[in-house]
Amino acid sequence: METQSNPPEMTQPAAYKKTPRTKLKRRHLNGSYDKQVVHDILDSGLVCHVGFIVDGRPIVTPTAYWRMGESIYFHGSAASRTLKTVGTGLPVCVTVSHLDGIVHARSGFNSCMNYRAVIIFGEAVAVTDPAEKNRCLGGLLDRLAPGRSGQSKPTSGKELKATAVLRLDLNEVSAKVRAGGVGDDEADQKLDYWAGIVPVKTVVGEPIDDVDLRPGIPRPDNITKIRLGR
Amino acid sequence: METQSNPPEMTQPAAYKKTPRTKLKRRHLNGSYDKQVVHDILDSGLVCHVGFIVDGRPIVTPTAYWRMGESIYFHGSAASRTLKTVGTGLPVCVTVSHLDGIVHARSGFNSCMNYRAVIIFGEAVAVTDPAEKNRCLGGLLDRLAPGRSGQSKPTSGKELKATAVLRLDLNEVSAKVRAGGVGDDEADQKLDYWAGIVPVKTVVGEPIDDVDLRPGIPRPDNITKIRLGR
Repeated sequence: METQSNPPEMTQPAAYKKTPRTKLKRRHLNGSYDKQVVHDILDSGLVCHVGFIVDGRPIVTPTAYWRMGESIYFHGSAASRTLKTVGTGLPVCVTVSHLDGIVHARSGFNSCMNYRAVIIFGEAVAVTDPAEKNRCLGGLLDRLAPGRSGQSKPTSGKELKATAVLRLDLNEVSAKVRAGGVGDDEADQKLDYWAGIVPVKTVVGEPIDDVDLRPGIPRPDNITKIRLGR
Repeated sequence: METQSNPPEMTQPAAYKKTPRTKLKRRHLNGSYDKQVVHDILDSGLVCHVGFIVDGRPIVTPTAYWRMGESIYFHGSAASRTLKTVGTGLPVCVTVSHLDGIVHARSGFNSCMNYRAVIIFGEAVAVTDPAEKNRCLGGLLDRLAPGRSGQSKPTSGKELKATAVLRLDLNEVSAKVRAGGVGDDEADQKLDYWAGIVPVKTVVGEPIDDVDLRPGIPRPDNITKIRLGR
């Protein structure tokens, strides 16, 4: 009988460790530390909200992010005050959320939303090695459209220098999901009000060629193959 | 000649005052303090990201919000740790963002996103007067579907007590908008790569009646008339 080692993905724990910060205080049923759940939510989004502290006050900045393995990345101008501040290892909280539907209960009180969210606590670190930075930025392009990094001008050394890339590891992470139907109290179900769900979706529209696109350049198929929403 | 006073909306300043915190550091062209721009962005969204500080670390929580005049509101369980914490007048930063499109430049470097965002700094205050709380919660229902507050079970005193409502005034506010076409460097425009925009939209799907909906209750037209995205 042959000795087989498990493939790498099988030997990794399937869940993030619960910590005092990520332990959900309420609605426990909706919380999850499952890596697959967290990855799915992260891989459905493009914009995260990065919270950090400057002069004792919170700042929440929306920015593009992408996941590679057990880290998420975000980037910006190397001259950006936000990137410089966050890249010094400040504590950050990064949140990604998707709105999936509006749940109209018969009572306003039980009306709510269906959503999926991930909250990550940690310290972001700057990616400084040029080759690694280049690899990460390729990951962003491939997130925007699978294979796009091979279909656009390679990033030059000067462009790499002008770009800051930050990495935040997925250690202290939780997901929160509200899905499913209307949760009216039993006594309210007999009332004559309509109840139901209005789904909300993120969709990709018909691409628009650049006005200066040279004639004869076809639109690649992958451009609309971005995963968004669900 | 009659002396006419301006209608109230004309006498109000049309822009928020720039402060050291809201003064945009980069991409000045995209920044705006115009009230109409800020209101439009806020009125297109349902979920904001609230940043606050607990034990010296930032927390960013996604939550539903709605605007009434020069304030936004958010709510939750009166037992919620977040609501209780934020309602004590802590400094908060509330951010709302919409992704409008992916801008594929010929260079990865100039690829970016079209988006609209609003960032609000301030201190949230708890709305405690029951009548005012009830009026605010009605505003939320009418945001979810115009007129919905008259089409659902009125909120009971017990339900009001169980709900916390917070108000954040629009004083220190800025908007940031990226719209328009591809911004490749001139030298890159001759390259043989496709460039263009993939629009991203938030859309409302076909409503789903509650499984327990009593026969004969029609689905109100207003349910899909929610303003979202644009």
